[in-house]
Amino acid sequence: MSIPTPSPSDKFSFGLWTVAYPGRDPFGEPTREPMDPIYALEQLASLGAYGVNFHDDDLIPFGSDDATRDQIIERWKKGLADTGLVVTTATTNLFTHPVFKDGGFTSNDRDVRRFAIRKVMRNIDLAAELGAKVYVCWGGREGAESGAAKDIQAALDRYREAFNVLGEFVHDKGYDIKFAIEPKPNEPRGDIILPTIGHALAFIETLDRPENVGVNPEIGHEEMAGLNAAHGYAQAMWQGKLFHIDLNGQTGPRYDQDFRFGVGNVRGAFWIVDTLLAGGYDGPVHFDFKTPRTEDDKGVWVAAKACMTNYLILREKAQAFRADPDVQEALAAAKLPELSQPTLSEGEGWADLEAAQLADPDALAVRGAGFEHLDQLALEHLYGVR
Amino acid sequence: MSIPTPSPSDKFSFGLWTVAYPGRDPFGEPTREPMDPIYALEQLASLGAYGVNFHDDDLIPFGSDDATRDQIIERWKKGLADTGLVVTTATTNLFTHPVFKDGGFTSNDRDVRRFAIRKVMRNIDLAAELGAKVYVCWGGREGAESGAAKDIQAALDRYREAFNVLGEFVHDKGYDIKFAIEPKPNEPRGDIILPTIGHALAFIETLDRPENVGVNPEIGHEEMAGLNAAHGYAQAMWQGKLFHIDLNGQTGPRYDQDFRFGVGNVRGAFWIVDTLLAGGYDGPVHFDFKTPRTEDDKGVWVAAKACMTNYLILREKAQAFRADPDVQEALAAAKLPELSQPTLSEGEGWADLEAAQLADPDALAVRGAGFEHLDQLALEHLYGVR
Amino acid sequence: MSIPTPSPSDKFSFGLWTVAYPGRDPFGEPTREPMDPIYALEQLASLGAYGVNFHDDDLIPFGSDDATRDQIIERWKKGLADTGLVVTTATTNLFTHPVFKDGGFTSNDRDVRRFAIRKVMRNIDLAAELGAKVYVCWGGREGAESGAAKDIQAALDRYREAFNVLGEFVHDKGYDIKFAIEPKPNEPRGDIILPTIGHALAFIETLDRPENVGVNPEIGHEEMAGLNAAHGYAQAMWQGKLFHIDLNGQTGPRYDQDFRFGVGNVRGAFWIVDTLLAGGYDGPVHFDFKTPRTEDDKGVWVAAKACMTNYLILREKAQAFRADPDVQEALAAAKLPELSQPTLSEGEGWADLEAAQLADPDALAVRGAGFEHLDQLALEHLYGVR
Amino acid sequence: MSIPTPSPSDKFSFGLWTVAYPGRDPFGEPTREPMDPIYALEQLASLGAYGVNFHDDDLIPFGSDDATRDQIIERWKKGLADTGLVVTTATTNLFTHPVFKDGGFTSNDRDVRRFAIRKVMRNIDLAAELGAKVYVCWGGREGAESGAAKDIQAALDRYREAFNVLGEFVHDKGYDIKFAIEPKPNEPRGDIILPTIGHALAFIETLDRPENVGVNPEIGHEEMAGLNAAHGYAQAMWQGKLFHIDLNGQTGPRYDQDFRFGVGNVRGAFWIVDTLLAGGYDGPVHFDFKTPRTEDDKGVWVAAKACMTNYLILREKAQAFRADPDVQEALAAAKLPELSQPTLSEGEGWADLEAAQLADPDALAVRGAGFEHLDQLALEHLYGVR
Repeated sequence: MSIPTPSPSDKFSFGLWTVAYPGRDPFGEPTREPMDPIYALEQLASLGAYGVNFHDDDLIPFGSDDATRDQIIERWKKGLADTGLVVTTATTNLFTHPVFKDGGFTSNDRDVRRFAIRKVMRNIDLAAELGAKVYVCWGGREGAESGAAKDIQAALDRYREAFNVLGEFVHDKGYDIKFAIEPKPNEPRGDIILPTIGHALAFIETLDRPENVGVNPEIGHEEMAGLNAAHGYAQAMWQGKLFHIDLNGQTGPRYDQDFRFGVGNVRGAFWIVDTLLAGGYDGPVHFDFKTPRTEDDKGVWVAAKACMTNYLILREKAQAFRADPDVQEALAAAKLPELSQPTLSEGEGWADLEAAQLADPDALAVRGAGFEHLDQLALEHLYGVR
Repeated sequence: MSIPTPSPSDKFSFGLWTVAYPGRDPFGEPTREPMDPIYALEQLASLGAYGVNFHDDDLIPFGSDDATRDQIIERWKKGLADTGLVVTTATTNLFTHPVFKDGGFTSNDRDVRRFAIRKVMRNIDLAAELGAKVYVCWGGREGAESGAAKDIQAALDRYREAFNVLGEFVHDKGYDIKFAIEPKPNEPRGDIILPTIGHALAFIETLDRPENVGVNPEIGHEEMAGLNAAHGYAQAMWQGKLFHIDLNGQTGPRYDQDFRFGVGNVRGAFWIVDTLLAGGYDGPVHFDFKTPRTEDDKGVWVAAKACMTNYLILREKAQAFRADPDVQEALAAAKLPELSQPTLSEGEGWADLEAAQLADPDALAVRGAGFEHLDQLALEHLYGVR
Repeated sequence: MSIPTPSPSDKFSFGLWTVAYPGRDPFGEPTREPMDPIYALEQLASLGAYGVNFHDDDLIPFGSDDATRDQIIERWKKGLADTGLVVTTATTNLFTHPVFKDGGFTSNDRDVRRFAIRKVMRNIDLAAELGAKVYVCWGGREGAESGAAKDIQAALDRYREAFNVLGEFVHDKGYDIKFAIEPKPNEPRGDIILPTIGHALAFIETLDRPENVGVNPEIGHEEMAGLNAAHGYAQAMWQGKLFHIDLNGQTGPRYDQDFRFGVGNVRGAFWIVDTLLAGGYDGPVHFDFKTPRTEDDKGVWVAAKACMTNYLILREKAQAFRADPDVQEALAAAKLPELSQPTLSEGEGWADLEAAQLADPDALAVRGAGFEHLDQLALEHLYGVR
Repeated sequence: MSIPTPSPSDKFSFGLWTVAYPGRDPFGEPTREPMDPIYALEQLASLGAYGVNFHDDDLIPFGSDDATRDQIIERWKKGLADTGLVVTTATTNLFTHPVFKDGGFTSNDRDVRRFAIRKVMRNIDLAAELGAKVYVCWGGREGAESGAAKDIQAALDRYREAFNVLGEFVHDKGYDIKFAIEPKPNEPRGDIILPTIGHALAFIETLDRPENVGVNPEIGHEEMAGLNAAHGYAQAMWQGKLFHIDLNGQTGPRYDQDFRFGVGNVRGAFWIVDTLLAGGYDGPVHFDFKTPRTEDDKGVWVAAKACMTNYLILREKAQAFRADPDVQEALAAAKLPELSQPTLSEGEGWADLEAAQLADPDALAVRGAGFEHLDQLALEHLYGVR
């Protein structure tokens, strides 16, 4: 296997904020210069990317006047046209400006909540104009550091209200846009509301238009809670809600590392790709990573390119794994096909089961599951020795 | 404030397996003798408990013949009558016998799945007979150690099928019983399906009878994922799904410690109790703890009693906190009441908001939230110095 | 018990960077104005603090010319004199400026390492002039995000070299200053060298002047690794190396939260104070916390004061716990005094032990340890109900 | 690259308890039959292993009389002779029997401590007779669940005393045996004394014969604390103390998983092997893993073999990585060789450095470190695409 080359047909996309991250962290000043968005487009296009996305403030500095805003948008559209990159999604920055210090949709301060919803509406208009199909909502500041500071039930009421208003807005405007909530357990807040894929999926069911809202899970965010990200992705697909994905790398429960995709939990990355392929995910393959601040501009593009390369490598490996006759035999031995068979037979009800002659549990217990053999085959595919 | 005394009106309940835990762990043999269930009832009653619950195999050894089973049940009923303890819930052991090594409802082996569902049905009959109102389902073995070993989407299909069959069973039998799913992220499996409150809540929405299924969150299980358990409890109540609770102590992401309630994350325990009171939870206050194996029988009852005492202490503190005029002032200053006000005014729609005159974000940002003052008041109540 | 009032005799100290933290985090801009160091001194003095400390760049902006530097120092000295606050320690900022992006003492770039050592020397001169007795070294950037990027053995060679040079410097200058290394497992680097108290203690033994170097453990840093901070403090004292302490609050493995002391792991905080008292720690009681960015200036001082108040509350509780006759009885029952008796008798050697008549292990095993009772007594002291 | 075959020259060794693990866990009964030690030897030899080791009680059931013991030992010796396997190390079980519920060397109960030391001495005699060169000490029960239950400074006194007595014993007997302490942060105790490599290294320096005591770090134990295991191994080698290694797999802070080597943190495993090669570790390559209880006997040997195969695969990859000219160029660009150069020049002292003309920090800061390129090369070697 050689090192594959990304192309637009692979549907790779990047956030503007990812490649433009200047390297500021809680303990240090930026190590890289601010990046011109058009330069970002050009570089991404040259590396084989398909799409791009942005927070409103990534593109248009907070507080810009209308003329400046229009000018920036025109330049951006030209950049898109010149590079052929597609705007796949957009999102709103509800976390950088001090006004959002206690959250946007769930700030205790009603004036802040009103400002937040309007800020989102304004950028949805732009997103629609630019052709985005998914609007991502990361509620990174919707949370608390202490118990009394946030009435969680009231906050969930407000969270729901915000999505209901925005759903009405999108519906009334006739936009072909769905929402994707991005969960995260903590950082920058002590604890964040809707901390995992599961909590977001459950919340969505309470909305006025649940069909229009899904999730945008980030690998690193799930792994910060020690959760198996591939399992989460699978449940999201099972519930028909995997509207977008954020791929990157993380090393377990600690600060949000946002490493390039393919590093961090390498084995987990393999299963993520396998899970996406098995589930038929066909949206953009999006990377939400930050180049470590040790790197210069050259390092940024090494890292961005590597995100795509690593995905392609893992995709090829996952396909080879599934196509390998030894693996197919091992899957059968491990009774994977049997898990897809209903537990009750056609027409069988609980009363039939109660009356049925069942296998002896002691006899069933003797059988080895064959998982170690199966997993070692997977690992050897990952290692590239099979 | 003095040390309060538990009484049945506090509705405290214990699992038979909690007080009877003999102290076996992954690296050591039991340090305590097996406990006679009737002795457990007597001790719990004498300490002021209200209820008790059990896995089928806690009470009736796996594989007992019908005569033995009946005898045990009769003795158990007499014990209940003698002590006045109520059976609040029951549950099924789908994890100890080797047959469940790959799970019960989601085992790759269909015969195991059939056996598992029937084992549950059998114990539901007993639970109904004994008056249990909630049937707990902890799917501790429903998971995997490696990626290919479990097709998560197929496993969720089977999980749903099992709950649908059991729901039909309970419905057809006319039992007044609801199900409560108990999530856990890992241990004894590498990763467990439905790892958090959120994942379970989302799953429930896909069932045939979602109204009959809720959650039974355990503090320690949520904290093993680094999650804020009180936030999880609040979301479960917000979704109308907090059917039962498992209180205990844990010290963050590590093995499942099951310490007595009130230790571990002490500050978290305070907010759990406050959250339960605020949300109007009125079910049994159940403890799922294990006495450390350093202790003898006397230590078991010290720990069991302390679970209840600590709950009462924290209840009194939480009530005093909410009643404190300084706290009420601090809550108002921190705009907690404002979070309960809808963000949009009566009759206001997105278009009105778009056109509204909003407050200047820079001006809004200046205001301090007052959370540190509020939280310090809470802490001083917790410390008992206020 | 009422709420105690801090006074200088309690020897509380604060870093200038703690109260002056403006609320910038990885996802947000500052929410508070830059703070004049003299204002910080005045506020701290008015709250009852004893001491203060600083990174060179906290006080004197990086790159200031000599005249500016001298002016700032004069003003600072006057502030100290006016308020009566003592400079207890000082430290060097080897992490904010981009030059330190790969570390200071262990940067791969030799020029950076040379610059780092000189930057430290310069501030040690100032520290000595201001009377600091301890010089803290937090090597937050000494680490790596990836395996090949740092040769750990070579990095430890350079780390040792730096401390040897600085030790020589302090010795030759005749300064009465000791060094205290502050460990941290990660953040802002993926993994940091000398990640825990233990690693730092082991490293110190390899230095030219080990007697002059100890540790400055921060509670939160140890808890980020899931370690018991009180155990770490105890080992540091046992090895004669607890030269300074950084008290704050954290909620387990996640980003560095730096909450005010007394929140976070409340039970852990109690044992930290008990451990310090038991071990006879008599240095400054230093807080390294950050006020959440939700707060305004008023909130900063609420939080700062609460650090001290909480320490005094816990000190009083720990003393009451140890003085309680019930506790003393429980300690004896739990054989705590017996742990202080040597295992071998006076004059006994291994051969005597080999020949000795020993107690029967099965008989010994029956005895309950009495730890739950003991710990519940502690908890009731913590809760303030005893 | 094809799948390599283990041979005795690779010096792979296994604990008897690893392959014989019957699959009992905190929630389940064994799923496999007890394993005859001679069968274990035969299987390991047939797979290409070199060595074996054991706890006293693995081989000789606790409480066996002398005649039984002698008989077992003779049979064991014959098994070793027949298979050609070498006893590389041995260790003592101070954790399974209830007598050790509060620890062995640091139990509060002096009688237990005496019993523990003698149990170790007895097995050291056997270890010496069988030719073991390293005696491993895992103090898994030396810890506590609560703060007052263990006086850590007193416990460290007793811990030191035990190692001093045992050191004297080995010295007086003239055994060619060194001790290797195995750290672990928690489980089965709430917190364990000497929780990490660092704490153990620091402790060793306080012993009477520090030169005779080193560490036996287990990958999984370090990763349970979120630490970089390769960094820990490197520091242990740097301090001349890596006397033995325990390789396995773990997925971050959670229960002790003991997966086969090469899974879990795959990227971490690569750097462990690279670190061992770079540091010239030449002891046995030992695996401390448990086959998941889903597996039958066949699965046990699949997993055992895979431990060795995966090590060989990673060894080949690490060697290829270091030999790759692109990597060597990238290492030079990332200034790795410069880290091996002393920071001060030959003969240069602090005063010279103070007076030296140093590079401008702003200019130094501009340079990119080139780490992302370097790490991507490593990852491509790991993936087997380079």
